[in-house]
Amino acid sequence: MPDAQSLLRHVVLFKFKEGTTPEQIAQVEDAFRALPAKIDVIHDFEWGTDVSVEGIARGFTHCFFLTFQSEEDRAVYLPHPEHKAFGAVLRPHLDQVLVLDYWAKQ
Amino acid sequence: MPDAQSLLRHVVLFKFKEGTTPEQIAQVEDAFRALPAKIDVIHDFEWGTDVSVEGIARGFTHCFFLTFQSEEDRAVYLPHPEHKAFGAVLRPHLDQVLVLDYWAKQ
Repeated sequence: MPDAQSLLRHVVLFKFKEGTTPEQIAQVEDAFRALPAKIDVIHDFEWGTDVSVEGIARGFTHCFFLTFQSEEDRAVYLPHPEHKAFGAVLRPHLDQVLVLDYWAKQ
Repeated sequence: MPDAQSLLRHVVLFKFKEGTTPEQIAQVEDAFRALPAKIDVIHDFEWGTDVSVEGIARGFTHCFFLTFQSEEDRAVYLPHPEHKAFGAVLRPHLDQVLVLDYWAKQ
């Protein structure tokens, strides 16, 4: 079991559909970035777009990196109405999503 | 261009070949965890194994999350002999790898 100091990382990768415009992608980015102000169980939040040089990002272009302090907080986030509303903004443009969570260890 | 305060995140996901034993996986984990002590351009390092509940990790089970302070530091890391030596430990057991880098933004 994770100890009380552990942080639960929530790694979210997006690949957008071909033809998604920069404006549509910016709408998705803005909508995701707005979530920490709306959902207080999001303990930490950062994001960025792929600048890797190895060529093995498999078409994923965006990473959103959320942190929760517990499984209970994640369980509040996942079905949260504001998270669902974000999903509605994202879905028309989404080709693939990958989500992997881990308890951060050194 | 990223400002001087930005951190370059390096997200590495592994999916191991079917039949890889827990001992072999532990060898890979230990070899990766040993890198920060050997490669000083690794500014921060954490890792963990998938505990997501959404079922969209696409077979990836491990996330290693490295931080560099510059593209120059990453350029030291990627071809570093100790990184290459780790690759030799990993490669026989690797099914898929995904790497996505981003400049961390809020």
